[in-house]
Amino acid sequence: MAAQGNGDAEVPETHVLAVASHVTAGYVGNTMATFCMQALGCEVSAIHTVNFSNHTAYKTFKGRKTPPEEIAELYTGLKNARLDDFDMLLSGYCPSAGVIEEVGKIGRDAKLRGNTKPGSFFWILDPVMGDNGRIYVAEECVPAYKGLLKDADLILPNQFEAELLSDVKIRDFGSLVQAVEKLHQEYTLPHVLITSVRLPPTAVSTPALEEEKSGNTGAKLSIVGSTATSEGKPRLFRITVPALPIFFSGTGDMFAALLVARLRQAVQTAGVSNKPSWQSPDDVAGPDLPLAKATEMVLASMHAVLKDTERHYQGVAEGMEGERELNEGKGEEAEREREMGRHLRLTRAAEVRVVRNVGALRSPPGLGRFRAEGVEGE
Amino acid sequence: MAAQGNGDAEVPETHVLAVASHVTAGYVGNTMATFCMQALGCEVSAIHTVNFSNHTAYKTFKGRKTPPEEIAELYTGLKNARLDDFDMLLSGYCPSAGVIEEVGKIGRDAKLRGNTKPGSFFWILDPVMGDNGRIYVAEECVPAYKGLLKDADLILPNQFEAELLSDVKIRDFGSLVQAVEKLHQEYTLPHVLITSVRLPPTAVSTPALEEEKSGNTGAKLSIVGSTATSEGKPRLFRITVPALPIFFSGTGDMFAALLVARLRQAVQTAGVSNKPSWQSPDDVAGPDLPLAKATEMVLASMHAVLKDTERHYQGVAEGMEGERELNEGKGEEAEREREMGRHLRLTRAAEVRVVRNVGALRSPPGLGRFRAEGVEGE
Repeated sequence: MAAQGNGDAEVPETHVLAVASHVTAGYVGNTMATFCMQALGCEVSAIHTVNFSNHTAYKTFKGRKTPPEEIAELYTGLKNARLDDFDMLLSGYCPSAGVIEEVGKIGRDAKLRGNTKPGSFFWILDPVMGDNGRIYVAEECVPAYKGLLKDADLILPNQFEAELLSDVKIRDFGSLVQAVEKLHQEYTLPHVLITSVRLPPTAVSTPALEEEKSGNTGAKLSIVGSTATSEGKPRLFRITVPALPIFFSGTGDMFAALLVARLRQAVQTAGVSNKPSWQSPDDVAGPDLPLAKATEMVLASMHAVLKDTERHYQGVAEGMEGERELNEGKGEEAEREREMGRHLRLTRAAEVRVVRNVGALRSPPGLGRFRAEGVEGE
Repeated sequence: MAAQGNGDAEVPETHVLAVASHVTAGYVGNTMATFCMQALGCEVSAIHTVNFSNHTAYKTFKGRKTPPEEIAELYTGLKNARLDDFDMLLSGYCPSAGVIEEVGKIGRDAKLRGNTKPGSFFWILDPVMGDNGRIYVAEECVPAYKGLLKDADLILPNQFEAELLSDVKIRDFGSLVQAVEKLHQEYTLPHVLITSVRLPPTAVSTPALEEEKSGNTGAKLSIVGSTATSEGKPRLFRITVPALPIFFSGTGDMFAALLVARLRQAVQTAGVSNKPSWQSPDDVAGPDLPLAKATEMVLASMHAVLKDTERHYQGVAEGMEGERELNEGKGEEAEREREMGRHLRLTRAAEVRVVRNVGALRSPPGLGRFRAEGVEGE
């Protein structure tokens, strides 16, 4: 083989169908996910659920939502050309319940194709519906996503989306475990990973508290995952990470994409890639699951990339502070326009710098910094 | 900075607008180009001129051509969100003269924006029209592309496309030089690079002939480039590479994309990135041009990636040979279907393995193997 970075060999050859949004500029949805998976050596076939100029947090954008029948047509095209030998499906943002149902058809069809060979197809579903108590899709999307759960292998809701899907209000660790258990049992979901758990301080358990005592008082968030046992019981792990002070769009898509590659790698290492839904034997503890190992690698990469993005953002923000005073006092409309200009520049400065950090994607730096821990009350 | 491959630092931060085709599966057009540029650290904003399931050499595909007004709308969206600070434009396949004209509007608008700062915007135009004497776009695309030439900085025609644009039939090296000269002068094109020159043996010049004498009789092709002098005279270089025995779709797009990144890097190294159209002083000889240096790096990366693709293809083809005899003699229709199946598998096996060779993209292996030479009769 020609000279290659070690990443080329690490992740097994993997054909991923990625169904999510596309933006021309910036990094969210498939624009983020495709590059992250490809950088780790995955063959990505991308179907775009929208085609926008940029993500909507800019507050101005142009473009078009893809009608469900165009998504169906592209999938038919792939089948006709026998390009539908997918090892994995990653489905993300859908602009309507109609598109969610179309994704369901695709997922079930791909699953059927892999039925004769256990482990040959794995569906990661990111049920993009909202965050922090606010739904930002049509209400009808919630039941539409529930309709997909019995066919998905792993779902990646945030805390709010986990509540919507499980109908369990997550107030503390006990109710979190209850939500995960319900998802495992009611929908026979083999794997659940809740991507951002923020619980009130009293609900935070020992390790984070100890860090707070030691003076490291930065905000934290947890990622909590579980692979069901053969009896459908949760097998939990948790990884606590520092919460960054800036909101970066696309981090959920980045997480999902890197997890596709790292999970595929971890299940091969663990020897469960030919098991149905890549489920580990019952004697494997939560923190030793391939899902936990994969998440550790993903978080290490993400931390490095987001730290670099934060540095870049701070530089832009400081530069803008200097300009600010020069432009004071020229009327209300001019001020509104300047505010919009500032908003656009800062939103852009917060675009995740994945393409400038290919090394960190391929070789997670400081691996071992984010360790999966067991969860009490399991 | 976090641990990074050296590629992260080599190519300056570059915002590229890429306008070309998109396929869900496989690697042509923007699907190829976006990844190659991103892997080298470029920020790519991609507008897709078509959205197909796969490339047309499969002989079956589904999808949709993008109407010109949707392309215009996405560009407007970028401008509104102030995401139009492009350093470079790479324009490729356009499905109609209408789309070519839309690309022209975008190119001129972006050029205007960069007018106050020499070298701040550079347009690479790949005039995708045909190959080997055959036009595969509508005839009206030829004059439409001619209409863009006076605003482009570098064009990347193959030999046939160079003939179409220059109206010079390329029969030998003399007429090739004439075609390049005409493009420099009639359209004030600063840079021309003809991506695949195949001339009859009598027209091949010394170095290739010497290799033939020494027993290395493999087929060759040449890449011939030129940056005009201040008087519009050609300054030529040539690089000869072995022709691979298999046809790989998307290699033109790969070449163009890698050249975007490597040219940006080479003009910075040469200190001409703030010169109009990145033109080198007149005392720089053809083989020493940044365009020549960039092409050397691109070809080294491509050779490694295509060799790996060829190995993969041969493996698939050999596997199919074994199956062949088992399936003989079951009627004409069954045979036709088998033939189509074989065609689809081989076409797929010839998809360029860029995502499995990120290392070779970022650190061209065996650099120095493809050296730019001067061209006699210059």
